[in-house]
Amino acid sequence: MSERFLVIGGDAAGMSAASKAKREDPDREVVVLERSEWVSYGACGLPYYVKGEIDSLDDLIAIPADRFREERNIDLRTGHEAIGIDRSRKEVTVETDAGEEYGIGYDDMLIATGAGALEPPIDGLDAENVFTLQEMNAGRTLKEAIETGAYDRFGIIGGGYIGIEMAEAFRGRSIDVTLFEMRDHVLPPFGASAAETVAGELEDNGVDVRTSTRVQALEGKNAVERIVTDDGAVEVDAVLVAAGVDPNVELAEQAGIDLGPTGAIATDAYGRTSDDAVYAAGDCAEMTHAVTDEPAHVPLALTANRAGRAVGATVGGDPTPVGDIAGTAVLKAFDLAVARTGMLDEEELRDAGFDPVSVTITSASRAHYYPGGSEIEVTLVGDAESGRVLGASIVGHEGVAKRIDPIATAIQSDLTVEDVEYLDLSYAPPFGPTWDPILTAAKVLNGKLD
Amino acid sequence: MSERFLVIGGDAAGMSAASKAKREDPDREVVVLERSEWVSYGACGLPYYVKGEIDSLDDLIAIPADRFREERNIDLRTGHEAIGIDRSRKEVTVETDAGEEYGIGYDDMLIATGAGALEPPIDGLDAENVFTLQEMNAGRTLKEAIETGAYDRFGIIGGGYIGIEMAEAFRGRSIDVTLFEMRDHVLPPFGASAAETVAGELEDNGVDVRTSTRVQALEGKNAVERIVTDDGAVEVDAVLVAAGVDPNVELAEQAGIDLGPTGAIATDAYGRTSDDAVYAAGDCAEMTHAVTDEPAHVPLALTANRAGRAVGATVGGDPTPVGDIAGTAVLKAFDLAVARTGMLDEEELRDAGFDPVSVTITSASRAHYYPGGSEIEVTLVGDAESGRVLGASIVGHEGVAKRIDPIATAIQSDLTVEDVEYLDLSYAPPFGPTWDPILTAAKVLNGKLD
Repeated sequence: MSERFLVIGGDAAGMSAASKAKREDPDREVVVLERSEWVSYGACGLPYYVKGEIDSLDDLIAIPADRFREERNIDLRTGHEAIGIDRSRKEVTVETDAGEEYGIGYDDMLIATGAGALEPPIDGLDAENVFTLQEMNAGRTLKEAIETGAYDRFGIIGGGYIGIEMAEAFRGRSIDVTLFEMRDHVLPPFGASAAETVAGELEDNGVDVRTSTRVQALEGKNAVERIVTDDGAVEVDAVLVAAGVDPNVELAEQAGIDLGPTGAIATDAYGRTSDDAVYAAGDCAEMTHAVTDEPAHVPLALTANRAGRAVGATVGGDPTPVGDIAGTAVLKAFDLAVARTGMLDEEELRDAGFDPVSVTITSASRAHYYPGGSEIEVTLVGDAESGRVLGASIVGHEGVAKRIDPIATAIQSDLTVEDVEYLDLSYAPPFGPTWDPILTAAKVLNGKLD
Repeated sequence: MSERFLVIGGDAAGMSAASKAKREDPDREVVVLERSEWVSYGACGLPYYVKGEIDSLDDLIAIPADRFREERNIDLRTGHEAIGIDRSRKEVTVETDAGEEYGIGYDDMLIATGAGALEPPIDGLDAENVFTLQEMNAGRTLKEAIETGAYDRFGIIGGGYIGIEMAEAFRGRSIDVTLFEMRDHVLPPFGASAAETVAGELEDNGVDVRTSTRVQALEGKNAVERIVTDDGAVEVDAVLVAAGVDPNVELAEQAGIDLGPTGAIATDAYGRTSDDAVYAAGDCAEMTHAVTDEPAHVPLALTANRAGRAVGATVGGDPTPVGDIAGTAVLKAFDLAVARTGMLDEEELRDAGFDPVSVTITSASRAHYYPGGSEIEVTLVGDAESGRVLGASIVGHEGVAKRIDPIATAIQSDLTVEDVEYLDLSYAPPFGPTWDPILTAAKVLNGKLD
């Protein structure tokens, strides 16, 4: 019998690994344990599902479970939850939906348990009108709840990706929204400048944005009726908690696998944990950051897919590094797009040994004479000592999402700001000015670094 | 008196150089000779001016002549044409619009004479209903001519940028268009695959596209009435010649300055010609190609702006290389965008010592479940021996223009196809699939290169 590759978790990282391992080594036995009924789903689409732009949760599935089973010959077990790992015996204890328990051995294992919604330390989170959006079924619960028409006023705790995307979704259903962010601007990893533009867009679309506001309690009789903050209380009909995510590391931790400095599972360049037979990938694992070369926890979809795929290749016999991450991300906020890459926080950068210098410029999304353009704002951060590009954010109404990618590429290639100034980027009047906004930002920053 | 920097040609390269030299060294005397009345204009906007989307030629001016004179203290002489260079005496002979002639000395000089419309070797080009679009006044002549309503049927000779943009402009005015391209596909530098999609878009918009068709003569009594080709004749009311451009090198050549293998003016890493006191930049000059490290002639706006700026910095006392080029370009063709970078032609690549392997993939412009997406086609070329990325084209209805830029960045950073596969690019459902189309292309190509 062939060696068994056991995968815990059937979403992006897990199914990518299972598929790739099987493709590399078709004789290998590959078993996937997934505690829910969902596999290979696009959780990033949940806000648009709740908004009503996507009809069915099934639409979010990239590849249905049966295709993994029948076409890819993967032993995919949905409704099977791994509840314990015995590393000395190389065996995992599994509990099924039906309440049965069994043990399954492994030769190689991947922990791809993802992340869960972070629970802020406040009372009242267990009321029935308090929602999260980290998992597929949570999305269904929320959509069904708001379609009853019972909720006219939502409070959103957290001004990150999900908080902002859900503000748009609720406003699309004419629900009043108050959004609470404890830090002094929304979207902390995007930097203050881009975040202010986003906050303006939210307010223009009727969202009451309360930054520097800490939620202290959710109060009410049978359900939450008001959100109490350090700056007064707000009456609401329901609450969405979107305060960030927490890597699901309990299983790994109980098995004695090392966690890293971020609290996620520590891994090497190949996604291997402190146990050579055990890999970790996706939202539960750390990866190396391209700017600092240090472990980072940036739970995003591409990272999970890519790391899972690399682990699958390695397990299948073709050792493949998981690569580094630049933390590149983009977000739609109503009609605005906002993107980021690398590191923008000057304090974090100084802690990492850099001497950050930054500029923020505005430019046009089309040639000045071409009709219909709008403004694009670019923040670019470089290191005064080495000249290296460290991070960037871009915000605007068109041409933003993919404009961050050359800067991500520059960061992963260790380019300097001067190198970026000399990139030969595309130009035509309908798509930008002759000097692309990111080239203009590099020109200005380079002048400051000289 | 300070040393004089004399610039011949007042468009992108010339005015960028003049401005930068003056900024670096405000005491320096800077004189610009421009034979027309136009300076610092966006010739790339001419098709949209002719189409009627831009009202006035003045709208295409980035910076008016008076601002160069008054704010930047540049001695800008419009209507002054350089007609001879005496390098031994370091003097240029100038002829003014008024017919006067004078000599002006220089310490450093920049030749930025641009490029003119290439004249194909056919009879009848001097008829009054034969137009070009290389210069501002040619744009005005053409727009005025078509606004008389005299021309219902246009023949366009050449399926490059201008030919295709003008096909859109003419169709926007309900003019019938037949487009002739002697090669077997339009947009030769974009590769056959992207070009076929563009040809389909042209045809969907009522353009009669005739590839592999060589125009032999323009015939008619007083004006051109028909275009005769090796595949029959087509009746037309007027002709646009858009067969490419020719670098304006006569002045340099007569002065004994070396031309390079492409026929444009040879330059070194700082834009210097074979004469140390004479620089050349913009559409008249060669630059180093990032893929081959060999001289190339790719007359594009950003290249001209950047090289001019670098020469200005060098002349102003801050030696600055002009950088290399990747030949990145993008074009709007009706509702389609098509972009390219690097080198795609397998024969040219083999001649340059590479072993090119290419893939063409199609992907979606948004997550599969997010409404409103369309198809994006990516062609990616890599070198089988080194794994390096050599070139790419992208074509589609959204998200194309700026998607080419990370590949341009990769080429200028000497990344391999595997490096590109591991780029951390942006993702959100409204803007692309989790694996960006260029990552998918890199994945597939990398599989082929292994």
